[in-house]
Amino acid sequence: MPRYRITIEYDGTPFVGWQAQPAGLSVQGALEEAIFRFSGQRVRVKGAGRTDAGVHALGQVGHFDLAPDKTGQPWPPGRIRDALNFHLRPAPAVVIDCEAADDHFDARFSATARHYRYRILDRRAPPVLDRDRVWWLTLPLDADAMNDAASNLVGRHDFTTFRAQACQAASPIRTLDRLGVCRDGNEIIIEASARSFLHNQVRSMVGSLKLVGEGKWTRDDLASALAARERSACGPVAPSAGLYLVKVDYPADDGGGSSNFEG
Amino acid sequence: MPRYRITIEYDGTPFVGWQAQPAGLSVQGALEEAIFRFSGQRVRVKGAGRTDAGVHALGQVGHFDLAPDKTGQPWPPGRIRDALNFHLRPAPAVVIDCEAADDHFDARFSATARHYRYRILDRRAPPVLDRDRVWWLTLPLDADAMNDAASNLVGRHDFTTFRAQACQAASPIRTLDRLGVCRDGNEIIIEASARSFLHNQVRSMVGSLKLVGEGKWTRDDLASALAARERSACGPVAPSAGLYLVKVDYPADDGGGSSNFEG
Repeated sequence: MPRYRITIEYDGTPFVGWQAQPAGLSVQGALEEAIFRFSGQRVRVKGAGRTDAGVHALGQVGHFDLAPDKTGQPWPPGRIRDALNFHLRPAPAVVIDCEAADDHFDARFSATARHYRYRILDRRAPPVLDRDRVWWLTLPLDADAMNDAASNLVGRHDFTTFRAQACQAASPIRTLDRLGVCRDGNEIIIEASARSFLHNQVRSMVGSLKLVGEGKWTRDDLASALAARERSACGPVAPSAGLYLVKVDYPADDGGGSSNFEG
Repeated sequence: MPRYRITIEYDGTPFVGWQAQPAGLSVQGALEEAIFRFSGQRVRVKGAGRTDAGVHALGQVGHFDLAPDKTGQPWPPGRIRDALNFHLRPAPAVVIDCEAADDHFDARFSATARHYRYRILDRRAPPVLDRDRVWWLTLPLDADAMNDAASNLVGRHDFTTFRAQACQAASPIRTLDRLGVCRDGNEIIIEASARSFLHNQVRSMVGSLKLVGEGKWTRDDLASALAARERSACGPVAPSAGLYLVKVDYPADDGGGSSNFEG
């Protein structure tokens, strides 16, 4: 059956998260309902990252299989994109791109890297243009100290400290390829990249980095928290509104198009 | 009487514009009402730029005079800022900064430069994270052609073509210091700077530049439109949602603080 790969942008604010749940609007559920409305087919859309409620995406990736239309022709990807965007309304999710994918392409398991961004606004006045888009803190953070401490977490580690209790991953070992912190005006931008992340890992790391930025933790305190391999050693988890799934990489991306590589 | 200068950020979507009007929520009116709520004083807030309905501001500047509080002390600027932000809610406007200003400081007439930004999103999928924040166009624009043509408009000219019929300025002559167009992913960013602008000037120039980006106008067509000095020669005016008043300059800004220079 023809397989399709879609790239999705969404405002996470009104969603219960990526994953379909018994109650509430999920991104996965909204996509599946929109596919049903134009094709009459009930399919499962699998995503690269199961983002939580309130978390945004600039480039989430999903895949699904869709039987040919009544004429026996595979649905043209451009038509799927436009039909999805028509039927997704008024939910704040759009399909930026749709392309035919190889049978073996899997949005989740073929991914070679996931890139997240976290935005903090540190100023006295609350955000208005970026309401629900940033973590608002009224005291200034030391971005250089945060960036310096963040380097402690880069590499292959047991991230038990920075993992939700509910995390279902078999192993707490992950390789963090990048964790950079920089300032842009009144914003602190944190960029994190890895092949895969544990549940709440980015928000847990950001919550602890904030303590460094406030001067409450030193870079050694952050290293000790990691070494403790205990959830209780983690700082308060950062809120979801500041987090963005920016991009997901797949092996054949440089050639443009789908991949049959199973990561 | 003590004079104060405030820097204001707002989401223009729900406002009828900067200027107080008989009906509807204006930024000026919201600020004046908020000042009344904490001080009991009815004052007039003057702004640097009278933005239209739907136009946003990252750094609008205003000034007002406020008599000392009951103890006879001038209101501390930080307290004014926080009190305004408390009383402005839930209107999407905030005071980023408040400082004591010289008696001669005038947000409108002391300004030496105004900087505007216009954002266009050109892709098939509608915006969701930037809904009401960009002009959405489904066909790609040629940003290089737009930037090349824009240079026609820089300098001292009669901008009658790019001026609203309702414009009340005495003269249509303005000096445009900068009009740059560049691409950032799926966005086209247009930056315009001048000491002052005519009513609807930025949106009128953007609407005509869009025709260049689509290949419907050449750079010479844009030059001819300017030379025509006729409103009918202008392309359709760009919508308000993509426009931002970014920053206003005053003479003493490099020294930090207020100014007594009358521009």
